[in-house]
Amino acid sequence: MRRLHIKLTILILAFTTGIFSNQTTFAVEKESTPTPNFVIIFADDMGYGDMGTFGHPTIKTPNLDRLAYEGQKWTNFYVAAPVCTPSRAGLMTGRLPIRSGMCSGKRRVLFPDSNGGLPENEITIASALKKAGYATACIGKWHLGHHSQYLPTSHGFDFYFGIPYSNDMDRVKEGNYMEMNTNPKIDYFNVPLMRNNKIVERPADQTTITKRYTQEAVKFIRQNKEKPFFIYLAHSMPHIPLFRSKDFENVSLRGIYGDVIQELDWSVGQVANALKETGLDENTIVVFTSDNGPWLVFREQGGSAGLLSGGKGGTYEGGMREPTIFWSPGKIQPGVVAELGTTMDLLPTFAKLANVQLPSDRVYDGYDIYPVLSGTGKSKRDVIFYYRGTEVFAVRKGAYKAHFITQPEYGSNEKTVQDPPLLYNLNVDPSEKYNIAEKHPEVIKEIKQVLAEHLKTVVAVENQLEK
Amino acid sequence: MRRLHIKLTILILAFTTGIFSNQTTFAVEKESTPTPNFVIIFADDMGYGDMGTFGHPTIKTPNLDRLAYEGQKWTNFYVAAPVCTPSRAGLMTGRLPIRSGMCSGKRRVLFPDSNGGLPENEITIASALKKAGYATACIGKWHLGHHSQYLPTSHGFDFYFGIPYSNDMDRVKEGNYMEMNTNPKIDYFNVPLMRNNKIVERPADQTTITKRYTQEAVKFIRQNKEKPFFIYLAHSMPHIPLFRSKDFENVSLRGIYGDVIQELDWSVGQVANALKETGLDENTIVVFTSDNGPWLVFREQGGSAGLLSGGKGGTYEGGMREPTIFWSPGKIQPGVVAELGTTMDLLPTFAKLANVQLPSDRVYDGYDIYPVLSGTGKSKRDVIFYYRGTEVFAVRKGAYKAHFITQPEYGSNEKTVQDPPLLYNLNVDPSEKYNIAEKHPEVIKEIKQVLAEHLKTVVAVENQLEK
Repeated sequence: MRRLHIKLTILILAFTTGIFSNQTTFAVEKESTPTPNFVIIFADDMGYGDMGTFGHPTIKTPNLDRLAYEGQKWTNFYVAAPVCTPSRAGLMTGRLPIRSGMCSGKRRVLFPDSNGGLPENEITIASALKKAGYATACIGKWHLGHHSQYLPTSHGFDFYFGIPYSNDMDRVKEGNYMEMNTNPKIDYFNVPLMRNNKIVERPADQTTITKRYTQEAVKFIRQNKEKPFFIYLAHSMPHIPLFRSKDFENVSLRGIYGDVIQELDWSVGQVANALKETGLDENTIVVFTSDNGPWLVFREQGGSAGLLSGGKGGTYEGGMREPTIFWSPGKIQPGVVAELGTTMDLLPTFAKLANVQLPSDRVYDGYDIYPVLSGTGKSKRDVIFYYRGTEVFAVRKGAYKAHFITQPEYGSNEKTVQDPPLLYNLNVDPSEKYNIAEKHPEVIKEIKQVLAEHLKTVVAVENQLEK
Repeated sequence: MRRLHIKLTILILAFTTGIFSNQTTFAVEKESTPTPNFVIIFADDMGYGDMGTFGHPTIKTPNLDRLAYEGQKWTNFYVAAPVCTPSRAGLMTGRLPIRSGMCSGKRRVLFPDSNGGLPENEITIASALKKAGYATACIGKWHLGHHSQYLPTSHGFDFYFGIPYSNDMDRVKEGNYMEMNTNPKIDYFNVPLMRNNKIVERPADQTTITKRYTQEAVKFIRQNKEKPFFIYLAHSMPHIPLFRSKDFENVSLRGIYGDVIQELDWSVGQVANALKETGLDENTIVVFTSDNGPWLVFREQGGSAGLLSGGKGGTYEGGMREPTIFWSPGKIQPGVVAELGTTMDLLPTFAKLANVQLPSDRVYDGYDIYPVLSGTGKSKRDVIFYYRGTEVFAVRKGAYKAHFITQPEYGSNEKTVQDPPLLYNLNVDPSEKYNIAEKHPEVIKEIKQVLAEHLKTVVAVENQLEK
């Protein structure tokens, strides 16, 4: 096992690079213990209920189930937004997408004709860890800007292999959108596959894409045994159009959606095995989660949020609560965790473990959750903001969630202002069935205060999605 | 570990007792291997989604999760009926309740003023195993007749400790039914607690009942180390009114319903520990399941069917598909099993393992599922009948389920005849959201034939619930 026996007790102030603004002071503190590796495995549009250990009856996920059992299964873990681009911006920066301009109520994600992307002065998990000497790889879907200044290689990643936006974009065939996406052919979608900054295949062969992402991740692990590393493995699947390799055709009782998840599960197993074989498993933290809830309009080809209401695009639980697992045989206390967590907590947690001090010139929306992972303490988080575009639709504080605005996930621009807000106790009523607003006006009052305080921290920035 | 080194190669024909009809030939074959012990742990009104490994976010069930992980988690396991009495009749006899007269569309279960019960000529799991020398205990709720000829001790059980019918019966307080059941006191319900054929406490102290059932089960295990045994541990909980012991007050984020499930989980842990401590775990098969789905009308005090539709009383999946675990470190191949199974399969499976040949004078609705449990083969089952009272409302064959009649679970006598029937692919669409009847008339035709064949096997018997 790799050991870094660097003993430096003084603080090394890393030089500020062009990536960061002038005010940015970026500090790295090296300690005697080796810093852990980090692997984020991110599914696309997978629902809360779409794996065995989260209750799906016919999707078989033995690898994910094992990781959940050996590690921590988080049952109240959220993303920063119910759609792709803002959710990923939140994960990468540890900040709500409203702070980087990466959300919009009009164009909800980046499209091939978009000119914006994650601003250059944002600090990503990769750019933070790079300061501590990490090798960094982004493998899979990016969707935070496809112009060169926004690509992974401009945001702290040494290596990139993947598609720059969603796999249903760059459609070149005329016809019915639903039909094309549920009965797809690869050449309907002229999506590019990139290696670093170059397009190496177009259209990307999506049938082999999960397998190739996996191979690249395993290779990166083997190549970086002597150095700490961070891998962001952001699968394109199970976002429609669904594709899987020959080996996974008709393996699942759940149909093609199940085949696709079962190939992702295989991929997770490959990564875990590579970590074991290289002896790195005890010093690596693997996180599995999804970017948003299931895309329900695609019916049998969309996933399931299990017992949660709603799905992708909306601010009911199914849209933003994700099936999440943390695994590290050497570092994580096994168990089921019902504490609140979000993808925005990963940046501060990883930075802390890598002895990287984040600059204090900006607001972060994440907390260090290592005390929970290690079984030594609690998270500081007790609030979740449910943004849709640039607006807060709902707020959770502790067990209680208040919906101030509701709107169907897709197909309607009609917002309903809920006054009084709908109020649910999510611990008791995770399916949001029983509105208890009348019984708890004091809770609504408190949540309104939390929201008002939060909004004071939000300042106007250039909108990247409407550029 | 107990070993029975009895080597008898000849068939011992057990004498027919008064319990069985004259035609009954009841055979026991003793083999050289010790026959396994059996423990059925039966929850009351627990939903498909009400434990960790079946996807509940805030009910903590570490013992059940562990048993599921070490054993088999069955995700398509059914009961014989969506309410208590007929479901239990099905489990005990391996036969649909229509065959024993233990179902009715009018009085759906037995009440304190009922005069009927499980007929004396029915063979129960206990009476079958008793022929092979098993010690047999019924601990918990019976609900198959409270007059002496129907009690557990008249149906093959050496020992009985429990309540003869539901814990919300014998109400002595006037008032609103919902209010009394969701804000209960023990003395609202004059339910008797029995030891063998005697009432030993009235009203039963329901706060300590889960704990006392557990103690009796553990004691029975310790007392029967040298003999094969069968324990039917049929908890009264989480049927409303909900009660738990002091140790479990406010332990769950899910509220009182969660507290109650967490005490059941503790109970499961106690039983598993007792088996380990006595060295019997490798030769004991433990089954955990529930008698029907969650009682949804009780809102936060009812359970959750997870991603399934409907609940107790109805023939959508949530009413009859149960969270089921088989555990036996020495005998069961660990994994998630999506094959079809039912509580009626337990009698033939246990009988086979105990070398008991069941008499051939009657129709059984169960199959030996030991090939699946041991990982050596498949079950013969590919059909589920969803009875409501004396009528078949729906039929599942393989992946497909056809609803011929639908009706709200409670509160309406109005049946809707579905013609054409509603058709769902449950493997792909477990939530029964997408009716595909139009696309698959051939499947409907086939299911209708299956139903017609089945109905030919049903003969009129005396109705026990309307007595």
